[in-house]
Amino acid sequence: MSLLTVGTVAFDTIITATAKAERVIGGAGSYSGWAASFFHTPVNLVSIIGEDFPQETIAEMEARGIQTEGLERVLGKKSFFWEGEYLADFSSRTTHATELNVLADFDPQLPESYLSSEYVLLANLTPAIQKSVLTQIGSSSKLTVLDTMNFWMDTALDELLEVIGMVDVLTINDEEARQLSGKHSLMEAATKILTMGPKYLIIKKGEHGAMLFSNDGIFSCPAIPLAKVEDPTGAGDCFAGAFLGYIAKQQSTDFDTLKKAIVYGSVVASYCVEEFSLDRLKSLEWSDVEARYEMLVGMMTV
Amino acid sequence: MSLLTVGTVAFDTIITATAKAERVIGGAGSYSGWAASFFHTPVNLVSIIGEDFPQETIAEMEARGIQTEGLERVLGKKSFFWEGEYLADFSSRTTHATELNVLADFDPQLPESYLSSEYVLLANLTPAIQKSVLTQIGSSSKLTVLDTMNFWMDTALDELLEVIGMVDVLTINDEEARQLSGKHSLMEAATKILTMGPKYLIIKKGEHGAMLFSNDGIFSCPAIPLAKVEDPTGAGDCFAGAFLGYIAKQQSTDFDTLKKAIVYGSVVASYCVEEFSLDRLKSLEWSDVEARYEMLVGMMTV
Repeated sequence: MSLLTVGTVAFDTIITATAKAERVIGGAGSYSGWAASFFHTPVNLVSIIGEDFPQETIAEMEARGIQTEGLERVLGKKSFFWEGEYLADFSSRTTHATELNVLADFDPQLPESYLSSEYVLLANLTPAIQKSVLTQIGSSSKLTVLDTMNFWMDTALDELLEVIGMVDVLTINDEEARQLSGKHSLMEAATKILTMGPKYLIIKKGEHGAMLFSNDGIFSCPAIPLAKVEDPTGAGDCFAGAFLGYIAKQQSTDFDTLKKAIVYGSVVASYCVEEFSLDRLKSLEWSDVEARYEMLVGMMTV
Repeated sequence: MSLLTVGTVAFDTIITATAKAERVIGGAGSYSGWAASFFHTPVNLVSIIGEDFPQETIAEMEARGIQTEGLERVLGKKSFFWEGEYLADFSSRTTHATELNVLADFDPQLPESYLSSEYVLLANLTPAIQKSVLTQIGSSSKLTVLDTMNFWMDTALDELLEVIGMVDVLTINDEEARQLSGKHSLMEAATKILTMGPKYLIIKKGEHGAMLFSNDGIFSCPAIPLAKVEDPTGAGDCFAGAFLGYIAKQQSTDFDTLKKAIVYGSVVASYCVEEFSLDRLKSLEWSDVEARYEMLVGMMTV
């Protein structure tokens, strides 16, 4: 009964219209693992870091039940680094720097203890690495979730399509769904993407919420209306981590469980964006999670 | 127990990426009245037309329970005309022509039989005319709804703010909510707008649905995911007309009724955009309305 997530554990420099955070902890593996650990432990983290990554953060992860046996540290090298700047309304962002560093040669070999992971999140990363992890897990998994982004559609579409064909759930945003399918209507986009392999498609729409498409039906979850967003980085990773964390906690993959998992994913993402880095997640209590879950369900009750 | 709507009854020429409809029936009064009449009759229509407007359409309205005693016809003049073109993804439109014609001197005097209207929709129109209608109705109304658009914020803000201060419900889209409030966050925008007079604010978000804000709570309604949109013209008018029509039918203005009214508004709007002009509304059956109501409620059920 374990959950695995693979994604970057890294440093980010984030510039917004009102603030700047320099070399703070980031990465899809960090965000998704932290989010999942609110619901289910152990979380088997797969990633790679350099000599510069703080041991203190790793200790914090361990203390939360995030296993770091699969977190490889390369001495003499630096961790992955990304610097980006958001527009004032957070509608788009510009990348100022991407330093692959240790990520350039990352070829994860899963520890023996990870191989029986039942719930697998392939957080945003090279499709080739996502595929390698999926292949090592083999048939022991009960639900596999793939998060990806337009960058991989632009640069590694064939490999990405291969991984999409291997997973149960795909999570992308609305523009990515349009790009991947070549269809403008999200309904048509979803119909087409569901023929590519996944049984479930989650389309993330930021402030407009998220939608779950499947042959079992459609579910639409609003986003928590926030008075203030400090930094949207990591929202999608938190969404995916909390989504799968809830499913692992429930030990169920039926449609009703997936719907509730999307609500919990939206809740954790809504907290993530209130502060930079993992800061808000670190102060988050379970009662906070439950409060916004009830709020979101209330907003949907007709 | 009657419902009044005031708005244009007019001709539109609509150009989309794939089709063109020339001089078809349009106008906020036409769309909103037609939509309301699925739920409640009589609908007391207030508007003005020229000699060119087809008597056949007026007869069709009468046959649906749309009263046209307040529909003034000016001989020797032409009806209001608007020509617009949409981008391929319907994300924005360009106005090619606006001919006020009869609308230039419109100063509606409500027929005696309209003065006791309980449910009043001020569909998109000059704030001065909206105010005049509201003043003539006086205190007999149980719920007043104001629909408006950015054009009036740009050109007649003071008069618009005065009308906003007089109504119970304001319906605008997300960009207009941001413009009116000067706040980017919809939560902050709503909080500010609710201090301007209305007890309820509905923010329409097109394909992302609609949100109801009030001191009683927040409700979020998704949009029906459509495979095909032919022409979005009139969607907001249909939304407002069906919204108020359902409320008039229920004879209730409590928060639960308003939530269901928003779902019905979304349903009728979703049909409206499937064809040009009133075409889809003309073939629409009550069973179609109920089918999509159930679909939307299903999409929200967690």
